[in-house]
Amino acid sequence: MTDLFWPGDQRAGTLMSDRAFLAAMVAVEQAWLDALIGAGIAPASARADLGGHLADGDLEAIARGADVDGNPVSGLVALLRGRTEQPTAQWLHRGLTSQDVVDTALMLCIRDALARIREELADQARTLSRLAETHRATPMLARTLTQAALPSTAGVKVARWLVAVLDAAETLAELRLPVQAGGAAGTLAAAVELSGSVEGAIRLSDSLAVTLRLEPSPPWHTTRSAVTRIGDALATCCDAWGHIAADVATGSRPEIGELAESGGGGSSTMPHKNNPVRSVLIRRTAMTAGPLAATLHTASAMSVDERSDGAWHTEWATMRTLARRTVVAASHATDLLAGLQIDAARARANLAAADGVMSEQQTMAGLTGRAPIPGYLGAAEQLIDSALQRAKHYLKDTP
Amino acid sequence: MTDLFWPGDQRAGTLMSDRAFLAAMVAVEQAWLDALIGAGIAPASARADLGGHLADGDLEAIARGADVDGNPVSGLVALLRGRTEQPTAQWLHRGLTSQDVVDTALMLCIRDALARIREELADQARTLSRLAETHRATPMLARTLTQAALPSTAGVKVARWLVAVLDAAETLAELRLPVQAGGAAGTLAAAVELSGSVEGAIRLSDSLAVTLRLEPSPPWHTTRSAVTRIGDALATCCDAWGHIAADVATGSRPEIGELAESGGGGSSTMPHKNNPVRSVLIRRTAMTAGPLAATLHTASAMSVDERSDGAWHTEWATMRTLARRTVVAASHATDLLAGLQIDAARARANLAAADGVMSEQQTMAGLTGRAPIPGYLGAAEQLIDSALQRAKHYLKDTP
Amino acid sequence: MTDLFWPGDQRAGTLMSDRAFLAAMVAVEQAWLDALIGAGIAPASARADLGGHLADGDLEAIARGADVDGNPVSGLVALLRGRTEQPTAQWLHRGLTSQDVVDTALMLCIRDALARIREELADQARTLSRLAETHRATPMLARTLTQAALPSTAGVKVARWLVAVLDAAETLAELRLPVQAGGAAGTLAAAVELSGSVEGAIRLSDSLAVTLRLEPSPPWHTTRSAVTRIGDALATCCDAWGHIAADVATGSRPEIGELAESGGGGSSTMPHKNNPVRSVLIRRTAMTAGPLAATLHTASAMSVDERSDGAWHTEWATMRTLARRTVVAASHATDLLAGLQIDAARARANLAAADGVMSEQQTMAGLTGRAPIPGYLGAAEQLIDSALQRAKHYLKDTP
Amino acid sequence: MTDLFWPGDQRAGTLMSDRAFLAAMVAVEQAWLDALIGAGIAPASARADLGGHLADGDLEAIARGADVDGNPVSGLVALLRGRTEQPTAQWLHRGLTSQDVVDTALMLCIRDALARIREELADQARTLSRLAETHRATPMLARTLTQAALPSTAGVKVARWLVAVLDAAETLAELRLPVQAGGAAGTLAAAVELSGSVEGAIRLSDSLAVTLRLEPSPPWHTTRSAVTRIGDALATCCDAWGHIAADVATGSRPEIGELAESGGGGSSTMPHKNNPVRSVLIRRTAMTAGPLAATLHTASAMSVDERSDGAWHTEWATMRTLARRTVVAASHATDLLAGLQIDAARARANLAAADGVMSEQQTMAGLTGRAPIPGYLGAAEQLIDSALQRAKHYLKDTP
Repeated sequence: MTDLFWPGDQRAGTLMSDRAFLAAMVAVEQAWLDALIGAGIAPASARADLGGHLADGDLEAIARGADVDGNPVSGLVALLRGRTEQPTAQWLHRGLTSQDVVDTALMLCIRDALARIREELADQARTLSRLAETHRATPMLARTLTQAALPSTAGVKVARWLVAVLDAAETLAELRLPVQAGGAAGTLAAAVELSGSVEGAIRLSDSLAVTLRLEPSPPWHTTRSAVTRIGDALATCCDAWGHIAADVATGSRPEIGELAESGGGGSSTMPHKNNPVRSVLIRRTAMTAGPLAATLHTASAMSVDERSDGAWHTEWATMRTLARRTVVAASHATDLLAGLQIDAARARANLAAADGVMSEQQTMAGLTGRAPIPGYLGAAEQLIDSALQRAKHYLKDTP
Repeated sequence: MTDLFWPGDQRAGTLMSDRAFLAAMVAVEQAWLDALIGAGIAPASARADLGGHLADGDLEAIARGADVDGNPVSGLVALLRGRTEQPTAQWLHRGLTSQDVVDTALMLCIRDALARIREELADQARTLSRLAETHRATPMLARTLTQAALPSTAGVKVARWLVAVLDAAETLAELRLPVQAGGAAGTLAAAVELSGSVEGAIRLSDSLAVTLRLEPSPPWHTTRSAVTRIGDALATCCDAWGHIAADVATGSRPEIGELAESGGGGSSTMPHKNNPVRSVLIRRTAMTAGPLAATLHTASAMSVDERSDGAWHTEWATMRTLARRTVVAASHATDLLAGLQIDAARARANLAAADGVMSEQQTMAGLTGRAPIPGYLGAAEQLIDSALQRAKHYLKDTP
Repeated sequence: MTDLFWPGDQRAGTLMSDRAFLAAMVAVEQAWLDALIGAGIAPASARADLGGHLADGDLEAIARGADVDGNPVSGLVALLRGRTEQPTAQWLHRGLTSQDVVDTALMLCIRDALARIREELADQARTLSRLAETHRATPMLARTLTQAALPSTAGVKVARWLVAVLDAAETLAELRLPVQAGGAAGTLAAAVELSGSVEGAIRLSDSLAVTLRLEPSPPWHTTRSAVTRIGDALATCCDAWGHIAADVATGSRPEIGELAESGGGGSSTMPHKNNPVRSVLIRRTAMTAGPLAATLHTASAMSVDERSDGAWHTEWATMRTLARRTVVAASHATDLLAGLQIDAARARANLAAADGVMSEQQTMAGLTGRAPIPGYLGAAEQLIDSALQRAKHYLKDTP
Repeated sequence: MTDLFWPGDQRAGTLMSDRAFLAAMVAVEQAWLDALIGAGIAPASARADLGGHLADGDLEAIARGADVDGNPVSGLVALLRGRTEQPTAQWLHRGLTSQDVVDTALMLCIRDALARIREELADQARTLSRLAETHRATPMLARTLTQAALPSTAGVKVARWLVAVLDAAETLAELRLPVQAGGAAGTLAAAVELSGSVEGAIRLSDSLAVTLRLEPSPPWHTTRSAVTRIGDALATCCDAWGHIAADVATGSRPEIGELAESGGGGSSTMPHKNNPVRSVLIRRTAMTAGPLAATLHTASAMSVDERSDGAWHTEWATMRTLARRTVVAASHATDLLAGLQIDAARARANLAAADGVMSEQQTMAGLTGRAPIPGYLGAAEQLIDSALQRAKHYLKDTP
């Protein structure tokens, strides 16, 4: 699986791939079948290893079926029923509806993507902490609206990136990944019928959650904030890296020359170039994340009835694309930061060459009547310390 | 102030209006001046009531100045300096930068909008709780992909709306509204210079937060997750109401006739019509909220340097529009729910006329060998109870 | 009317304002009444100057009515009927539906905005032509992926901006602004009834188009490509200026220093700064235009029935905001270009300092065996000429 | 290649696939090499069949290279140079830059997608023409804001869909697909160097266009309206089908029952259901198209320098996804229309049951004093005829 249209895509490996999605759907059916058996609803003889009945080539048949039925579950269930013996065949999927399987499977896929993103964020937090410490006192011009503003330090800039990364990590930490097992109309009617009681039905749903390590939840077939929050959090990650990439792309302009990616990309015709490729590819991601998250909101807002007539279907590929891209950008950002070169000499020279950057201080000193504080760096040190402290706290809680 | 292009706009009153924004900016300057005086940095004789020096007509001059300077603060400060005596004139705004004033003022404006939205959400939670209780046993067809699915109840549908409203309220509850007081380069350099110490500068910033009842915060000039999270939460609210409105618009189709707005809008040429106007206007809002939230993400992702060259400026009107629209939609949703009519007879008739809605139960009963449970309503009651319980908990914590 | 949240808003004056919208709606009602009279359907005694019956204060009442009815027309018609004598009162609006009035009025408002944008584009094309000519031979570094690429000229860069402006102008030129007069269900039923014949009804609709200088059209209540095309064209304009602004913001970084806005904005605390405010404000617009155009597409795609249940209402404010912002950005771009300073010395110095920019030429010369062509400027002259030629052609056709 | 996340994806076959993209890039390199040889710049002995040197397995290596270099061209060229003999190896790609190859290849891929979409649109226009004729006199209720409005006919509704399809086709017809061959900085410097003259360089570029059947064009590396217009046109197609799908999804609600898809999708648990799957999947597409088109606008607006630092890279996958989805939706729409069932009896019954739909006519008749025209269908026939006429004209020009 390659994606020539999205360089770096392979960094996301099989996360949110068709194969992963199929495996997750099978895991949902398996866990549900096991729950039915465990509850004494289906006979023990129905126990079967569902995944063992599938082969790679099934993807195409399931995809064709999805085009007919509007989702891949009917085809998958038909295929499994055709390949398993009785009583497995008659019991599998009983009590579930297609949306239960798709939604729960997507939460499983998303969980894997989030785990990967969290690892990258922790890696970045470590690298940024080190960089902030190292460049705590490296003078660097602060620029506002593209123009020279005041003296600052590279450490402050890096600490700000660190804060952005920690903010993004915090947003991820708040996400909840609910199980979906409401049956055809979100009332657990079939599960109640099968188990003979409401409590039994809820136990089935909770058991599915426990087995799959998702959060127990009432059905959410048309209340989609769990999905939009995932999208918003992923976009927030991409925003953070977008900001870093914009700074690096700017700082690596040869006329500025304060920052450089190590091992930037070459040119097909200009051998001298050291392009900030990681930054460029991250910026690309950052330009597409917001609209993808917005698409999830629009879908959520168009929810209707007990299963939506298009809004639900909008989510799958949107989440897939947004999650894979976030993983790829996470990896790009980790690499970018790991190899980032800060040219202290150029930074010092640019600062020295900047016009008027001490004029504000003169105004202030004029007001206070005191001699100007050397450097005019304000609370630079404390801002760095505060970011480092927050990172330390975050990393302590992150394996 | 009217907005013929956005019917209902007046429901947002002066929230996020130019006047409110100006008042908030003046409040920021006032609180900062007071903090300077309180810290013994500016002399007591600098104390002044800044708001008293402004008149309505100033808005136009400040707007013209904003076009020249790129934001309204330079003009406002110049105007205040021209109208106040010394030493007030020379002390006001010292230590702040334009972005400090705009960002903090926007947080004040947003707080007022959020307070109003929270009131509406609480009102809706109360109405929905009552409706869910009243229609706990009202039979209603569950529909999936537009087609008849299973029997359900109006109470379950209403409880699902309630859950969506509570989800939205939860997202709002997580928001933090930080103060911004980093000075020209986000290093508090001027404040340190003025106060003579880093601690003094941080005390000034914290004092601003306390006076304005915002959260103390390190500067966030180019780390904008506070802004994107507000946008995401507002969109989540609009999504929840969009879902309700889609259900009501559908249910009030005359061929379905299960739901109706009270006092729907008339037609300019067809006197017989009872249009679901609240639903229509909410759906309108819901279609625009996602892209507005996405614009905030794009802006955040394009952050660069110590103040962004356009990304920051993108936020102001986007937040204003999104916040006002959310307030208007909140009010529309409150009215919609307060007047919602549920026609139990039509709902019962539609359910009775639906083909095949008991067929799933027959399959299940065939598997269990037990007699079908009358009604096939599954956990309908418990889903309602769970939503009611959550609402009760929420309302207890909400004044 | 000011907009502190969108500096520069006043440049759009009353274009697409509530007042302009109301005046346009009245113009539609007037033209329709006149058509009814002209066709002998309404009596000559029904003739009246509708606008004369309205006052500024009516806006608020109409806005309140729009909130009740979902659009401003019912309230406007009721108000006019209450203030005019018979037979005027009973004849006005007969045969029209609210959407006819709103859609046609919006086309009138859009026409005025487009006219203004076209003037600005022509102005820009003239300025850019002059700049391209002046800087035809000014050496300037070509940069790709932020890095030094090859030698080029300022003239080529300016010519590329010119091409972008002409592309945008071309998109505008293709727009059509249709009249809407389909009656309640888009079948002209009432107009046929009133005129006694289909031909008579179509004549009424065409007459409305002629009077208002719009394009005759079959009803388009739920086929909205006319609207989305307007949005797409406006976004295309903003894209063109966004590209120019990005180049100017970059080129005016002090370390590059090749470009500068004249009279850039000042800072509230740093007097030395010359911020590229026009560029910043244009970039802001450019970040918001795409999502607004997308909102129009989403609305179009959600069209349903013979009048949509929210999608239509989504368009009004979206078009208003997009059109006003495009006008403002047009004006900013005109100013930016009129005052643009190109520092030929800095450009030459940056080029001279760039590493490796002749390496590609050496490779090529190695292949051909010929001596390198001095300057390695390729077809720079011809690219400029081609853009100038296209501008000349465009300006000849533009008054 | 399957896409379980986007049911129906296989309908787009290899259009815009990695393989198609790679083949197109090779076609560009081939045509350019041939042009160099044809112009006598490269020796005849450099002639080679480049495609013959590539195998399927190369995709992965090229994808890895794209991650390093930021685009797939450097890797492709290196691979081809490694596999071809001299003098082929040293001549291929000379004068081009990566963006030339990617942009031109994307235009080739897009052309194939557009051709397929045009076929589908023509097919739809034929089906809709037939349906409009067949149901010219089938009574059907016109609905506005979800409520009963006036009598109309199924033919008018179908004719309106036809107009939407023709509008979309018109937008496609205006697209131009330009060649890109500007070299490293968009000045054709290398091509001038190689050919020895500006005219020679332009001949090379034009020759590339002719061979590949694209439009000759000056370089457009950072003026991207050609790309945004493609995105806008594709979204316009999706809008048209979205509107049709919304009408069909609504009309196939069992309580309305006027429309039905033939062979709708089944349910995994409810055998009685006939879901409007085509409509649902089209609505899904329609919700995602606008934001994708907007992403292209944002990218265009963020263009900078002589090659953009992320904006360009944003386009590739965005165009791919939008184009493939449009092809899939085109195919879904063709199927939907081919199998559409219009239940004239239900339509007649719904109309008869609708309250008040003749009240407007009574008002009109009261004004004219004439007897009401039977049916109150207005210009229904003429609207159908006008649409049919337009379709005929379009189909005559479409093979």
